[in-house]
Amino acid sequence: MSERPGPTTRIRITELAGPAARERRDDLATEEPLELRLAAPDGTRRTVAITMRTPGHDFELAAGFLHGEGLARHGDIASIAYCTDEDLPPEARYNTVTVRLRVPVPDLPALDRHFLTSSACGVCGSASLDALRDRCATVPRGSLLLAPEVLYALPDALRKAQGVFGKTGGLHAAGLFGGDGALAAAREDVGRHNAVDKLVGWASLAGRLPLAEHVLMVSGRASYEIMQKSLAAGIPVVCAVSAPSSLAVELARGFGLTLVGFLRGERCNVYAGAERIIT
Amino acid sequence: MSERPGPTTRIRITELAGPAARERRDDLATEEPLELRLAAPDGTRRTVAITMRTPGHDFELAAGFLHGEGLARHGDIASIAYCTDEDLPPEARYNTVTVRLRVPVPDLPALDRHFLTSSACGVCGSASLDALRDRCATVPRGSLLLAPEVLYALPDALRKAQGVFGKTGGLHAAGLFGGDGALAAAREDVGRHNAVDKLVGWASLAGRLPLAEHVLMVSGRASYEIMQKSLAAGIPVVCAVSAPSSLAVELARGFGLTLVGFLRGERCNVYAGAERIIT
Repeated sequence: MSERPGPTTRIRITELAGPAARERRDDLATEEPLELRLAAPDGTRRTVAITMRTPGHDFELAAGFLHGEGLARHGDIASIAYCTDEDLPPEARYNTVTVRLRVPVPDLPALDRHFLTSSACGVCGSASLDALRDRCATVPRGSLLLAPEVLYALPDALRKAQGVFGKTGGLHAAGLFGGDGALAAAREDVGRHNAVDKLVGWASLAGRLPLAEHVLMVSGRASYEIMQKSLAAGIPVVCAVSAPSSLAVELARGFGLTLVGFLRGERCNVYAGAERIIT
Repeated sequence: MSERPGPTTRIRITELAGPAARERRDDLATEEPLELRLAAPDGTRRTVAITMRTPGHDFELAAGFLHGEGLARHGDIASIAYCTDEDLPPEARYNTVTVRLRVPVPDLPALDRHFLTSSACGVCGSASLDALRDRCATVPRGSLLLAPEVLYALPDALRKAQGVFGKTGGLHAAGLFGGDGALAAAREDVGRHNAVDKLVGWASLAGRLPLAEHVLMVSGRASYEIMQKSLAAGIPVVCAVSAPSSLAVELARGFGLTLVGFLRGERCNVYAGAERIIT
């Protein structure tokens, strides 16, 4: 990774088209955590949000978030700066933004945009993966092996299971499938993370975790958080209709997950764990 | 609203096709807050998350969220129940889920899935709008008037402004346009709320808020949170390529915003504030 992460990240992937596979380069949207801190004239400092974002326009992100939450207006802001201490690892330097206020730090205890906690000035994608390693083991290779035809059939099967989407067009979906492509369960929600939580909760309450022989298919994109939820549930394969982020791929590669994206028609891209797909 | 919200909500909308407008019924994906509480054997109670979600499978959502965050495994859970106190307003009864643990409540202070704080057992969409009313005024009718042709041109204009999407296919976009359809600024991010925050932050840092003569166009769906950010920035018109949620429409109608969805080709649906569109 370069010192200052850019909006895209280049990697090598496997592209499947019908039964054929080829290696090629691909550009991913970069996903990295941003920690937003407020600093008041009296020296008070407070982290108000840690959010995954695409690097770029970070000061605007900070100012816009504060405005939207009613925490600070334009006139309240004295300065905005990165935490670029020399003793920080290079990849963490541009992931902490401190907004210096002309006014006291507002007191809103439950405002943290949920993610992971970070005590030091030095949040970064790799640190997020390290923190995850404390509570999630690498997924073993296992016996799950998928034919491309099984993958290609998943989007239609998920769409057919979406009762509410058909009426509204307004819901994300997540489906859990066996290695033969048979649907185990599907859930819908306005929030894509919620759809995955509902599926994992279904399995948890039924005493079926970990889901070592299952495939998770999501109707949208694959973000870090989707991969983290799959990892925690022991699901070895995640398929998405759309693109994964850089950190989703990094997580998949670091924890032994298979990650498939742009699964549409008889095509898809394999970003990690291609050994679980028969080619 | 019925006592227990369902996954869809029926409303009347205005559908535009070319220059023609007609009224019809439409079904929206329901969006309501869910407060997730933990209760320990020693009587400790703690709210760990408030998240917007589509009602249904709420106990699974609770169990799956707790599993994914490493807060409680299946065996740690004694019971899961709604907070259905008779003295609660009917619409709030099914929006608080309490998970009784067999183990102590984990101590993770920064874990709140960001939204709004709620001290009582009784979070609901209307309460969220009431809380918003304390810090955001209704947007005045103003002078902004939009021709349908201006709306129809926005998705293409936004797509052309998306530099990173073209390379990766993996980013949400938000664009700010004048009443004549001229692009003022566009931002991209893996997180759709971040793309809007970046736009609003751009305007805030330039001293351009409120954006009373502007239109916000987003590449995805219109959720409560997107509408709340537009409202805070004083943007009177929000357009989305995909569907709005029930609470997005409720917010738009309650605060005088115009909300356009399914803006594709020469068609769109107007969910609120049709008086700003020339028909």
